[in-house]
Amino acid sequence: MRIKGIEHIGLAVDSIDTAAPFWRDVLQLTHRGSEEVKLQGVNTDIYDTSSGKVELLEGTNPDSPISKFLEKRGSGIHHICFEVDNVESAMTELKENNIQVIGDNPTIGAEGYKVIFIHPKSTGGVLVELAEKPLK
Amino acid sequence: MRIKGIEHIGLAVDSIDTAAPFWRDVLQLTHRGSEEVKLQGVNTDIYDTSSGKVELLEGTNPDSPISKFLEKRGSGIHHICFEVDNVESAMTELKENNIQVIGDNPTIGAEGYKVIFIHPKSTGGVLVELAEKPLK
Repeated sequence: MRIKGIEHIGLAVDSIDTAAPFWRDVLQLTHRGSEEVKLQGVNTDIYDTSSGKVELLEGTNPDSPISKFLEKRGSGIHHICFEVDNVESAMTELKENNIQVIGDNPTIGAEGYKVIFIHPKSTGGVLVELAEKPLK
Repeated sequence: MRIKGIEHIGLAVDSIDTAAPFWRDVLQLTHRGSEEVKLQGVNTDIYDTSSGKVELLEGTNPDSPISKFLEKRGSGIHHICFEVDNVESAMTELKENNIQVIGDNPTIGAEGYKVIFIHPKSTGGVLVELAEKPLK
């Protein structure tokens, strides 16, 4: 598997409006975009650091994984996402290594990336996302 | 403040020996080094992703911040570290913005970086480290 770098860090926040000023105004990260990812039940607000992004994630319904995380642990770092060149082959390789992938197929995440998530059970407690950049 | 990128993600682990195989063998990240940072009471094991590092952190004594984190929350993502060009001026700027910095002065972290930590109270629940690369 070829990891190309840290694509982003996902942060679970109670409210993007309340959380954004620290990242935008204090750290002065560049705002890159905001979008709803319906499949994951989240609103995203994405900032660029020049090398890796910060993604603020707010649940849009009580059943979204972000809402459940917030309920259980409160706001904080939710996951790390690494960019890979091919998410399908990464998934095959993970399964061969008996690593637990969440779901059977990649889904489409923010910014059109093709993504999979590795279960924290297989990583020592860290939710790890692998993402393949969409073709332009 | 000029953030130059995500320098690393710090992961609190119960045991580097147990945690390392996923990052080293499954994700196939490049091992960069291991060192003890006595001031923080941790052993570190550092991997490179080509763009941003992953730092495994194991407490060396029960009073280390990592041991306390593990006791309270279990293994998982402990902090995000951003590279800055000047950590002293970043600290001044944070204080002017009423952002709570932990400690009065930068300390020396892994790989000789000059570092400060921003209290999660000021960031919406995320422990944020800012690090200035040492001169060669």
